[in-house]
Amino acid sequence: MAQNVAGFAEEYQVGETLKQFISNMTEHINGLKKNIPIEDVISFVDRILNSETIFILGAGRSGFVARAFAMRLMHMGFRVYVVGETVTPRIQENDLLVAISGSGETTSVVDLARKAKKHVGCQIAAITSRRSSKLARLADIKIILKSRDKKAQPKGKDKDIAPLGTMFEISALIFLDGLVAELMKIKNLSEEDLRKKHSVLE
Amino acid sequence: MAQNVAGFAEEYQVGETLKQFISNMTEHINGLKKNIPIEDVISFVDRILNSETIFILGAGRSGFVARAFAMRLMHMGFRVYVVGETVTPRIQENDLLVAISGSGETTSVVDLARKAKKHVGCQIAAITSRRSSKLARLADIKIILKSRDKKAQPKGKDKDIAPLGTMFEISALIFLDGLVAELMKIKNLSEEDLRKKHSVLE
Amino acid sequence: MAQNVAGFAEEYQVGETLKQFISNMTEHINGLKKNIPIEDVISFVDRILNSETIFILGAGRSGFVARAFAMRLMHMGFRVYVVGETVTPRIQENDLLVAISGSGETTSVVDLARKAKKHVGCQIAAITSRRSSKLARLADIKIILKSRDKKAQPKGKDKDIAPLGTMFEISALIFLDGLVAELMKIKNLSEEDLRKKHSVLE
Amino acid sequence: MAQNVAGFAEEYQVGETLKQFISNMTEHINGLKKNIPIEDVISFVDRILNSETIFILGAGRSGFVARAFAMRLMHMGFRVYVVGETVTPRIQENDLLVAISGSGETTSVVDLARKAKKHVGCQIAAITSRRSSKLARLADIKIILKSRDKKAQPKGKDKDIAPLGTMFEISALIFLDGLVAELMKIKNLSEEDLRKKHSVLE
Repeated sequence: MAQNVAGFAEEYQVGETLKQFISNMTEHINGLKKNIPIEDVISFVDRILNSETIFILGAGRSGFVARAFAMRLMHMGFRVYVVGETVTPRIQENDLLVAISGSGETTSVVDLARKAKKHVGCQIAAITSRRSSKLARLADIKIILKSRDKKAQPKGKDKDIAPLGTMFEISALIFLDGLVAELMKIKNLSEEDLRKKHSVLE
Repeated sequence: MAQNVAGFAEEYQVGETLKQFISNMTEHINGLKKNIPIEDVISFVDRILNSETIFILGAGRSGFVARAFAMRLMHMGFRVYVVGETVTPRIQENDLLVAISGSGETTSVVDLARKAKKHVGCQIAAITSRRSSKLARLADIKIILKSRDKKAQPKGKDKDIAPLGTMFEISALIFLDGLVAELMKIKNLSEEDLRKKHSVLE
Repeated sequence: MAQNVAGFAEEYQVGETLKQFISNMTEHINGLKKNIPIEDVISFVDRILNSETIFILGAGRSGFVARAFAMRLMHMGFRVYVVGETVTPRIQENDLLVAISGSGETTSVVDLARKAKKHVGCQIAAITSRRSSKLARLADIKIILKSRDKKAQPKGKDKDIAPLGTMFEISALIFLDGLVAELMKIKNLSEEDLRKKHSVLE
Repeated sequence: MAQNVAGFAEEYQVGETLKQFISNMTEHINGLKKNIPIEDVISFVDRILNSETIFILGAGRSGFVARAFAMRLMHMGFRVYVVGETVTPRIQENDLLVAISGSGETTSVVDLARKAKKHVGCQIAAITSRRSSKLARLADIKIILKSRDKKAQPKGKDKDIAPLGTMFEISALIFLDGLVAELMKIKNLSEEDLRKKHSVLE
């Protein structure tokens, strides 16, 4: 099964696609910077600061981005839980549910967000790439990150280089980590403050 | 507990830090592109292509990046497991263990990688920011992504804007998604091929 | 905040409730033995043996029981995945979805089982305590474990001693571990065979 | 690949092994009741009641039992986290670490418990079947559940009917759910109180 390493490296010019990917990504992230939905970001920050508890929801790779954001909220001292994890309590009316889905159509995410809206009446923030999606339509706060998502037809130079939700997932991680920087500034927190909450048992 | 929304938005110029963060990130990613360790990338790709099974290991936010990569390897048809998940079988000599840790010192990651090396003798690839870390030193393949990690002292403009391992984690996600693009090209896979493996139960 | 240890131990006769709980449990498990739905068990075993891949689904504490069962199926050499974990591929027509829910009404479990039935057409096995539940009604194979579940009204001696789904969850774990013993016998597997697949990286 | 269902059911007398398993289990649980280490249980309950925060640690199937216990502690209103989950903060000196491992030798569990003892100095409770294990030896509170664990040699009627840690895992779940009943009594909590904390988003 072994291949001639030098062989495939030369044949496929290993490294070139990686560089192309990073170039596309840089361009994409620059686009993100120009299109920050500032009013929605302010509403979102306001809700994060003024909710009793924050619940984070996502599936698949968006779920990993969701967890990365939840962990930083914990490091900053917010009361935060990930939907589906062990110690997550019942969501209440004064809480905020942050739901992340590129397509905005992920079954479990949409169903649980709808259930929270109907039965609990808490605020819902959607991080998605589609304003017309089920998730965005039921949300109170809509953060629309302009990216291809995995249900859209691939086109142009992204085709087969950033498959499925890749662009959205990286954009969402960067956007949310930028939001962490905003929240640190507002709450006057230093990196050292976050480090004090960081788990040592890992 | 409510705050005057317009008030804090103006006071803290919400959006400015976010833009600054994205600018730093773009610059950082460009640096990543210039410093791709091409020989190590080729060895890594070779091992991914020629290992029986690939095991992915990471803790905390690096663990989420690890899982995002594992999911794409599955979408591409590789036999892949995440260390610590339910159906992960015993690792064997002809397998590859990919361990991700910014500092390269995370207890569970280092201990398990060491155990795999000693008792199983499989190949180990480390994705880390520190060449001198315990993890990098025991690895066969070392992918060093030049980023601050969470044990380094914060300095310059990154201070308090990309706390702890943020830069490394985003870099690692982008690098690994770029590698996915490389692997798709080598294996001649289209986005549609990946979509066919993507879970519908989420 | 410290209490007088000897004091509370005496006051609450610590140990008595624990013994009572175990007694109730023993009685309950004996009831389980008398009521094994043998025809349904045979159909379930047949499906496990003859499906391409087995997918396991559950939420909350039933989800932990589900994962414990999935891990043993892996140890026995079955191709098995847990819905929602990282490397879980797309479910196909010739696969089996095993869904565990005491009430049979858990939103995400019912919604995903329904989606699998409608869009994939795979076989669905429900492990539940309620024959009339949404989950049982849509399942091809129904394993009804007679236990209180968390939506039923507490009554008699179980009240406040085995709250919510406790009885069902313990019953389901024991039932499924008994099934593992059946499968080991049919496949002629010894404990040593299972040990060979058991993860060493934990 | 299909088999004659009636055929294998008759050939293997499907159901008999399941019944045997449940009988063994019942006998085993009865033994558990007779051997409750009452003084250790009192110390454990005291620590649970008087610790600031409770951290739960376990790997593999013991990890699922650990999570099932953590969830009930949350339902009862304790401040509790699972080591390795997203929102788990840094453990502190006045906290309690509950580590579950049948063998008491699981690498990650022993290493992290040791790290907590050395660097944090918090109390450690071990739930294990082996008094002489590394985990039990470093623990302040030792709950020894007499069961076979997965490193012991199988013998007698358990051989190949309750493989690896099965007996310990079921025993631990039952013991801990019995402890939940004790804690509910001491804290004067009803099932209804627990239901109020139970997640609705699952």
